Amino acid sequence: MEKYAADIFSIREAQARIKSLAHTTPVLTSESLNDLSGRQLYFKCECFQKGGSFKFRGACNAVFSLDDKDAAKGVVTHSSGNHAGALSFAAKLRGIPAYIVISKNAPKCKVENVMRYGGQIIWAEASVQSREEVANKVLQETGGILIHPYNDGHVMSGQGTISLELLEQVPQIDTMIVPISGGAQSKAAGRIIMLRETNTIADGLRGFLGDKTWPVVRDLVDDVIIVEDNEIIEAMKLAFDILKVAVEPSGAIGLAAVLSDTFKKNPAWKDCRNIGIIFSGGNVDLGILWDSFKT
Amino acid sequence: MEKYAADIFSIREAQARIKSLAHTTPVLTSESLNDLSGRQLYFKCECFQKGGSFKFRGACNAVFSLDDKDAAKGVVTHSSGNHAGALSFAAKLRGIPAYIVISKNAPKCKVENVMRYGGQIIWAEASVQSREEVANKVLQETGGILIHPYNDGHVMSGQGTISLELLEQVPQIDTMIVPISGGAQSKAAGRIIMLRETNTIADGLRGFLGDKTWPVVRDLVDDVIIVEDNEIIEAMKLAFDILKVAVEPSGAIGLAAVLSDTFKKNPAWKDCRNIGIIFSGGNVDLGILWDSFKT
Repeated sequence: MEKYAADIFSIREAQARIKSLAHTTPVLTSESLNDLSGRQLYFKCECFQKGGSFKFRGACNAVFSLDDKDAAKGVVTHSSGNHAGALSFAAKLRGIPAYIVISKNAPKCKVENVMRYGGQIIWAEASVQSREEVANKVLQETGGILIHPYNDGHVMSGQGTISLELLEQVPQIDTMIVPISGGAQSKAAGRIIMLRETNTIADGLRGFLGDKTWPVVRDLVDDVIIVEDNEIIEAMKLAFDILKVAVEPSGAIGLAAVLSDTFKKNPAWKDCRNIGIIFSGGNVDLGILWDSFKT
Repeated sequence: MEKYAADIFSIREAQARIKSLAHTTPVLTSESLNDLSGRQLYFKCECFQKGGSFKFRGACNAVFSLDDKDAAKGVVTHSSGNHAGALSFAAKLRGIPAYIVISKNAPKCKVENVMRYGGQIIWAEASVQSREEVANKVLQETGGILIHPYNDGHVMSGQGTISLELLEQVPQIDTMIVPISGGAQSKAAGRIIMLRETNTIADGLRGFLGDKTWPVVRDLVDDVIIVEDNEIIEAMKLAFDILKVAVEPSGAIGLAAVLSDTFKKNPAWKDCRNIGIIFSGGNVDLGILWDSFKT
């Protein structure tokens, strides 16, 4: 059996490491949404996690896995999103500096999160190339440790604690739907497909698969369901109106998926009864949320 | 000792009665809001209760306290707010009709809740007088039982289960802040004061004290803190931005109160360390929320 960058053992280790630092997030249910989907839905609210997204789990596991000597120089990352705020917060808890390379088009509330938690912002252009160049420069100047937003074993193991926790809370879950950046074309092709453009309202899902995350997706994810922007917006609206929860676009796609015809009409999924849905984050500017509802 | 319409015994009874019907709602915490207030805050999220507000507890306790003969004719109420949806839902669970008298200026999302749960809507003019007249007519025609929105022992005992549940979840709480319709002038005068107008953004708090609720407020509530509409809006914004929770204006006033100078600067409250705040409901139209933020 192939060795993955994260497995049940590393995830259990992560759970023990971050237990006293991260929130145990609640699971919400709604009979209205059960009726709408025809299944029993269990919403794992990582939007209520520290920093407003699940990313705190991975960042926290990575930061607290460092030995004191490495940690002292600080941590560095390039992220325009929730990993940026999460890493800032985790570094603050450990009392070390966090250097965050952010592109100029990042959502305002995510930049505010970095500032709130004391991360030091270094601006880059919107391209991945620019962010990586700036990050390399920061790494050289500070001697800090790079904590990649996703392609990192400790980060992956930290994120994996969501599922472990959810299964402890709701043991009868038989299916789990989680947000993923791409993956559909890669799974079909049997190798990582990089896209020239990733144009979606889900700003947290514009990344790619990495060499550490890809084997997990390739071997252990049953299927990737694609949802359109209008379905994501409808799911955010349902989350707000019925569950009273602010969910960002990337976080709402699990609900969008379970309500989509692609899922409902696929005979392969007809026996999925108790479905865990990860509301991965809630960092959405209210004005942008409202504007998207009007269109 | 005076006998109150609800006490710890009737509340414990209510808790046993509604246990399998109502959600045990989660408690959220935030270090950012702790820093802002200088206290440890515990947010009891009744916005996640069935029907989107705490009112389900009281309605449920009242409906399931009826004997089968009384219940069969249905329940009646006059409410433009959360009690209307809550009573409809509780009646639906018991399989009996709910007749809801609603004034024409009620918030859209609260009317939709009544429809969602199968309540039968009878429209009235905006005045309390019109609502009561129409309700009396409905009572005569149907022979149904009136479940008053608040001045009712079973309803009060059901609502009281919030605090019991919160104290079980967070035993170290030393202070509880709850939304209240008026009460400040009544406490000062030593009798119920009725106002000609109740003009506030908090549409759930435009009612008055009743002869059953007043003794509790008179004797057992330490103080009533008044907050302005702009403070309520700021609290809703903090709830959305930091906690990722949709809280309606009436539900946000506990957070507004704890952040107000009236509270912060009063030496009587300086030893309040662990404060329970009831987010009583989340039924707010997103467009109205956004409009209020812009003003």
